[in-house]
Amino acid sequence: MKINSKIKIIAFDADDTLWVNEPYYRETEKAFTYLLSDYLPEEKVSKMLLETETKNIKLYGYGVKGFVLSMIETALKITGEAADISQSREAANLEILIAKIISQIINLGKELINKPLVLLTGVKNTLEAINVQGIKLVLATKGDLLDQERKLKNSSLSKCFHHIEIMSNKNQEDYQKLLERLGISPDEFLMIGNSVKSDILPVLSIGSYAIHIPYHTNWAHENVTNNAQNHKRFLKIESILEILPVIERNKDRFV
Amino acid sequence: MKINSKIKIIAFDADDTLWVNEPYYRETEKAFTYLLSDYLPEEKVSKMLLETETKNIKLYGYGVKGFVLSMIETALKITGEAADISQSREAANLEILIAKIISQIINLGKELINKPLVLLTGVKNTLEAINVQGIKLVLATKGDLLDQERKLKNSSLSKCFHHIEIMSNKNQEDYQKLLERLGISPDEFLMIGNSVKSDILPVLSIGSYAIHIPYHTNWAHENVTNNAQNHKRFLKIESILEILPVIERNKDRFV
Repeated sequence: MKINSKIKIIAFDADDTLWVNEPYYRETEKAFTYLLSDYLPEEKVSKMLLETETKNIKLYGYGVKGFVLSMIETALKITGEAADISQSREAANLEILIAKIISQIINLGKELINKPLVLLTGVKNTLEAINVQGIKLVLATKGDLLDQERKLKNSSLSKCFHHIEIMSNKNQEDYQKLLERLGISPDEFLMIGNSVKSDILPVLSIGSYAIHIPYHTNWAHENVTNNAQNHKRFLKIESILEILPVIERNKDRFV
Repeated sequence: MKINSKIKIIAFDADDTLWVNEPYYRETEKAFTYLLSDYLPEEKVSKMLLETETKNIKLYGYGVKGFVLSMIETALKITGEAADISQSREAANLEILIAKIISQIINLGKELINKPLVLLTGVKNTLEAINVQGIKLVLATKGDLLDQERKLKNSSLSKCFHHIEIMSNKNQEDYQKLLERLGISPDEFLMIGNSVKSDILPVLSIGSYAIHIPYHTNWAHENVTNNAQNHKRFLKIESILEILPVIERNKDRFV
């Protein structure tokens, strides 16, 4: 990464950049596929869930409530198909189970909302050290409004951020609007996050800087090839612990 | 209403202040109670739904997805109780229906998301006339992030607003944070909306001005007594068409 301008604001993604998120979703999905394993092998249930989520994303957006609604829709589809095939007394019994399955999906959703907030290693120290240097921090996250506000509150990180932006999407125009709102130009903005699709590519394409910190677990919907590995405004690091050295090396480039 | 300071920003609520919202929800609820009318009289279904929504509001927040999840939860409760009571072959038949009922609830939710955006009378002209006078307008709304952004886009009103704030709640602290973000003091802020609970009482209590425009249909959860009828920073009007005359009468009080 070669920084040629002055960076006025560093923005961090939240889920799986600052705190654990995707593993909780995968855990919930596992419990969901298990609920339906009498009907269909678990990997097929997963595949159908992803298809339903992808189809619904425009309508529901990101976050836990849309995820729960997509699980319910998937369960209805799978159990409905099973009933159509057998059309027997057994089918009636299978259908009786559906109420219990859906009730359990709703509970899985509520449990997911109430999962403990776990910060990733080095997050708190890094943010506080950046604060001390007087560099402005912004939180830029997708997801459910209430859910993300709750997580932020539980994280005790609110005070580190000059501005919190909960976005319904993270494409080029969304970042452009964010920069307008912040009153800065693209080359004064550095985004840090775990998703190549949401935190890196759109940011590079508007002329800003981006640092990728991969996370071990990603939602399939976010998976894209990173064709910007050699981009001069891009850097990939292993952990948030490498952020302070990057700032140190480019000391005169941060305001 | 007696304005003793200079108003720098006028904020408008969105749902049922600028555009139709609650009638769509009531229409959906009516379809929902009808779906369950074999199990329970419709008014009892409504009552149970409100109880479920109220219980879930802390977890789900405001908006259509939480509403759909609460409808599903209510349907499971009602059909489950019916099955427990009869425990017969008939109960099994009733339970077979549950998958269809829940599938229809999901469809009702999707239809609700896709309802046409209908502006209330006088909204566009009023906002544009306020714009012409150089008074800054803010949109301050509760609800689902994506859903409210979509409605705003369909309304073609975005350009009228200096700032859009989609809030997970509208209590005193939420308004205080909004004022901080806008960089103004309470006596420089006027809120206009249809909900006494969300748009009027918390705003008056922090020292700002509030104008109430009642709407013919309200969500029971928002119903509170207005004990501020005679408050000196409060005004109740019948329609948004009365806003311009209020500004005209207090011309020197708006910046």
